[in-house]
Amino acid sequence: ISLLLTLVYVVLTLVCGGALLLCGMTGVEATTHAMTTIATGGYSTSDASIGHFNSAAVEVVITAGMVLGGTPFMLILMAVRGRPEQLAGNTQFRAYIAILACATLAVAAWLVLKDHMLPLRALRGAAFSVASIMTGTGFAASDYTVWGAFPITLLFFLTFVGGCSGSTSCGIKVFRFQIVAAVVGREFRRIISPNEIIVPRYGGLAISQDAIASVMNFMAAFVFGFAALTLALGLLGLDFVTAASSAATAISNVGPGLGPVVGPSGTFQSLPDTAKWLLAAGMVVGRLEVMTVLVLFSRQFWRD
Amino acid sequence: ISLLLTLVYVVLTLVCGGALLLCGMTGVEATTHAMTTIATGGYSTSDASIGHFNSAAVEVVITAGMVLGGTPFMLILMAVRGRPEQLAGNTQFRAYIAILACATLAVAAWLVLKDHMLPLRALRGAAFSVASIMTGTGFAASDYTVWGAFPITLLFFLTFVGGCSGSTSCGIKVFRFQIVAAVVGREFRRIISPNEIIVPRYGGLAISQDAIASVMNFMAAFVFGFAALTLALGLLGLDFVTAASSAATAISNVGPGLGPVVGPSGTFQSLPDTAKWLLAAGMVVGRLEVMTVLVLFSRQFWRD
Repeated sequence: ISLLLTLVYVVLTLVCGGALLLCGMTGVEATTHAMTTIATGGYSTSDASIGHFNSAAVEVVITAGMVLGGTPFMLILMAVRGRPEQLAGNTQFRAYIAILACATLAVAAWLVLKDHMLPLRALRGAAFSVASIMTGTGFAASDYTVWGAFPITLLFFLTFVGGCSGSTSCGIKVFRFQIVAAVVGREFRRIISPNEIIVPRYGGLAISQDAIASVMNFMAAFVFGFAALTLALGLLGLDFVTAASSAATAISNVGPGLGPVVGPSGTFQSLPDTAKWLLAAGMVVGRLEVMTVLVLFSRQFWRD
Repeated sequence: ISLLLTLVYVVLTLVCGGALLLCGMTGVEATTHAMTTIATGGYSTSDASIGHFNSAAVEVVITAGMVLGGTPFMLILMAVRGRPEQLAGNTQFRAYIAILACATLAVAAWLVLKDHMLPLRALRGAAFSVASIMTGTGFAASDYTVWGAFPITLLFFLTFVGGCSGSTSCGIKVFRFQIVAAVVGREFRRIISPNEIIVPRYGGLAISQDAIASVMNFMAAFVFGFAALTLALGLLGLDFVTAASSAATAISNVGPGLGPVVGPSGTFQSLPDTAKWLLAAGMVVGRLEVMTVLVLFSRQFWRD
């Protein structure tokens, strides 16, 4: 089965690369971008990232690729093997698409109403940025930090969300938010009818106490990791927006932060070396999902 | 017992007011400030808040008053009735004092090293600001947003912390962080030794599953409330720092935010009316601890 999943990965990358060739990219550009799109990695051959190509077709292909990169590969495999209802009916995938769609529509509406962008142009820009930040790919097609207050704030929060479990993306991941929502909903109903016994459910199945504890732990560790990294960067003299957004973008493995320094049109180059070491550590800890790394610092772990 | 707690409140206010009189305040000033210090309310007779008096004695008295305002009143009552060990040995109170002390020392060290402030001056300014923000009082003795990156970041995170349960302060409160820490610690040990049965403890007692669920819920609701309020303020056109910090300061009932508009030397006056309504709603929701308010929106609640 792991061989088949690898095949999904390879085929998606090949399809993405082929599509990019058709959009007019050179062979090297198409190969590189296909590889970093499906991997939700986000490296580009140009400092201007995808903005370099200034092509609607390229942006649409890469947006689709990033969305697929954040989808559980197992469900993609089932879909191509003739069971697309497994993908379409999946609780996590549906929430993932719903968040992407709502955020894209909200940002596009803002761009049309506030920045007087043409609707199609706004939709294309919004979909690209939302998919890039939420899946943690980190490509930039335009400098969304000039779009104004609401898109910036929304994209900052989307930094933490991430894609689905079983995909190539990082972050807290959609299913954890769904489990928290289910538990909060249960507590809420319990306040209203204290004698009713309510079991929180996810995708129709009851959620175990252990699963709840582990999700809550992950989130707590993630938030405290973010706060600690932000404080450490503040100690190095980084301003609040740069420190908070680069800590968020590092621990979620996204890429660009906010503000003139680490925003999508800036680079992390000017940061002090210590800040780079800390951010690199944050990326590793975020990728390995925090707890795994903390265990390494325990004396008991090394003794056993 | 509630009569005795009221007495604690009144006596603390009288003592604080007397001390402020001795510091050279007028009768009206001393009364007003004593009442808003112990209540961790934070209203001052001057737009410059406590900075107006420019007096070390006033700042020390008010710092002490704010710290007492964030202490469980029941434990203060026990302490004056001859059982100070109940206060000194209390798990939550010890953590509360430890956080206050560490944050104060860290900010003071920054002020001495980076801003070349005299050590005593730095300690006084740091203690005042840390106590004011953490307990949610919101007095300002100096504009800490010019202190630089680290104090700003630390004070932003302290906005969420709050004082102890059973005190006059708001926010997430210290004991909730302690419970999360205990649960994360348990999970951590479980990863190392999966077969060991570990019960998370708080103040020597086992924490029930219900208590864990309710704390985790509260935190999740608090964080999502903060995110939703920030997004709504972003929609109204407030910049990221103003939106995020005013949402945080409203939902935690603190007072000043960050940045030129809502920072300690600014006022919320220039914000659009809709933003003021939203922030006012955020303050009510934060004060009533989120879930209580959410229940009002449930149809089932009104039917029963």
